[in-house]
Amino acid sequence: MVEETAIPTLADVAARAGVSTATVSRVLNSPDKVAPKTRERVARAVADLGYSPNFGARVMAARQTKTVGAVIPTMENAIFAKGLQAFQEALHEYGYTLLVASTGYDAEVEDAQIRALVARGADALLLIGHSRGRGLYDFLARQEVPAVVTWAVRPDDAGAVPSIGFDNRQAMRELAGHVIGLGHRHLALISAEIAQNDRAAERRAGVRAALADKGLSPDALIYVETPYGFDEGSVAFAQVMAKRPRPTAVLCGNDVLAAGALRQARAMGLDVPGEVSITGFDDIDLAQILHPPLTTVRVPHRDMGRQAALALIGHLTGAAPLSSATLDTSIVLRDTLAPPGHT
Amino acid sequence: MVEETAIPTLADVAARAGVSTATVSRVLNSPDKVAPKTRERVARAVADLGYSPNFGARVMAARQTKTVGAVIPTMENAIFAKGLQAFQEALHEYGYTLLVASTGYDAEVEDAQIRALVARGADALLLIGHSRGRGLYDFLARQEVPAVVTWAVRPDDAGAVPSIGFDNRQAMRELAGHVIGLGHRHLALISAEIAQNDRAAERRAGVRAALADKGLSPDALIYVETPYGFDEGSVAFAQVMAKRPRPTAVLCGNDVLAAGALRQARAMGLDVPGEVSITGFDDIDLAQILHPPLTTVRVPHRDMGRQAALALIGHLTGAAPLSSATLDTSIVLRDTLAPPGHT
Repeated sequence: MVEETAIPTLADVAARAGVSTATVSRVLNSPDKVAPKTRERVARAVADLGYSPNFGARVMAARQTKTVGAVIPTMENAIFAKGLQAFQEALHEYGYTLLVASTGYDAEVEDAQIRALVARGADALLLIGHSRGRGLYDFLARQEVPAVVTWAVRPDDAGAVPSIGFDNRQAMRELAGHVIGLGHRHLALISAEIAQNDRAAERRAGVRAALADKGLSPDALIYVETPYGFDEGSVAFAQVMAKRPRPTAVLCGNDVLAAGALRQARAMGLDVPGEVSITGFDDIDLAQILHPPLTTVRVPHRDMGRQAALALIGHLTGAAPLSSATLDTSIVLRDTLAPPGHT
Repeated sequence: MVEETAIPTLADVAARAGVSTATVSRVLNSPDKVAPKTRERVARAVADLGYSPNFGARVMAARQTKTVGAVIPTMENAIFAKGLQAFQEALHEYGYTLLVASTGYDAEVEDAQIRALVARGADALLLIGHSRGRGLYDFLARQEVPAVVTWAVRPDDAGAVPSIGFDNRQAMRELAGHVIGLGHRHLALISAEIAQNDRAAERRAGVRAALADKGLSPDALIYVETPYGFDEGSVAFAQVMAKRPRPTAVLCGNDVLAAGALRQARAMGLDVPGEVSITGFDDIDLAQILHPPLTTVRVPHRDMGRQAALALIGHLTGAAPLSSATLDTSIVLRDTLAPPGHT
């Protein structure tokens, strides 16, 4: 029997959870390899007993600055704002302060900012996506700064850091599948630059997969890459509409590009969705303010931000191991998508 | 004659600028009290000689972390994003990293975050507006962390920190004056909560001043306060349109509220600007993407962000004293403002 005042051990956790100490150890070190039910039971025992994995963690806790960093690609257009807001609110509940750095989608800038946040004493980091050099993860491991990736799922890569995110490929595959199901055969995709953006690359893969699912050629997809921005979306829309056969549906890599596309359609005198359908991705507030309101993919911004915060806090306090989670997205049907017209 | 290798003194600067040492001292300590031309001449001499105001500044330079903090009210809706982006780009040119904290317009959160940034070693801070307790400024002075306020001008208050900003009152006075000049007599203002937001308070004062300028009663202004947000703008628009006499022009405290108002007008079947005019403030990217495009006040986002960065860097490197600047705004006439209709 465990005395209430004793410091709980690994064996105490195993006893309480009704599993072997090896299982507890596996949950703490490689949670992905353990069945979810077992993982939950162990996590509950860890929390109930106030178990902290090792003495190092206690020392770490003592030197915590209660500051968490987030490194995001951009603050413009509020793409990441709602998720970060929920992240910050949850951190605030536990007495942590959030400091944010933005990279302009530049890998070198991101590298410098991650190192600056660690140098400034960040206890933990939130990152967006997995597109970065292995050296950075090694650096974070050496510095004992835990990180969680959001806006993406953990790839099949043993070295990847845990993710609290959503499946960009699957989300876009569902949306594109729905578009094709309405009868569209000529699709265009206006994508962000995919070179250092795994979210954009996955979304493109999703559209291609949906085409293949329906027996259409992925190579027939009209494809343009451009930085995220209203004006960029407008220019790209004019480009894809000049192709023949002209697309009847223009899928956009995010809502900002879609807003630009919608404005350009209006400027070109094209009825949306009568003559051309336009879709977005993210469901930021903007999507509802557009006219017509935008059909898009809803990303679980607030849920993702909150869960990421709780995961990091759980890890920092030794209450629960840092593990990955995949959240659901959904298609939000508004007024910019319809079956192809007969124009 | 000054030897090239000697450490330049105050007297060297005075000699080079052709002014007295008292004038140099005044430029360094109370630049607002010195004529701009004299200030520039001294600043150039300071830069030419590489003069650093005091030995303390040298020590400070040596312990710099090359990190600058910005504490902003919100990351949502990208209200501050473009200014911050320019601020960060200028910092980056000089090797500084920007860390951003957001407060949710909460004074206590702002207080905690300013202290956290200083504790984490921020060399300098960018703040928004002047609405905060004197204690914070005393704290920053004790910690020798320079700060610059943006999005506002320096009030007539000897204790205020320097501002690189614009005159919210004058900008709104000009816009409201233009609206009244078109023939509008029944105005409404949808404002942010002004209690801890000097920018919003100044904008309201500007509308009232414009009414008085034209011999109209400021008290006849239909006035609603609400947090910044699309939905909040929609609700507030419905409220002000229920008043009698019904307003023919609805001025909004920022573009986000105006976007919500515009959506609500559409939902109510009201033609904009035929039946009611709507204006914004900020000219964020959103203003151009709305339909119809929004008439608003253009804030010098990029210029302000860049000048704020250069001012702080100049101060940190001892190259130039930190002084205030007031930048111009302008009215951007798009398609949501017209003379009152005859409905």
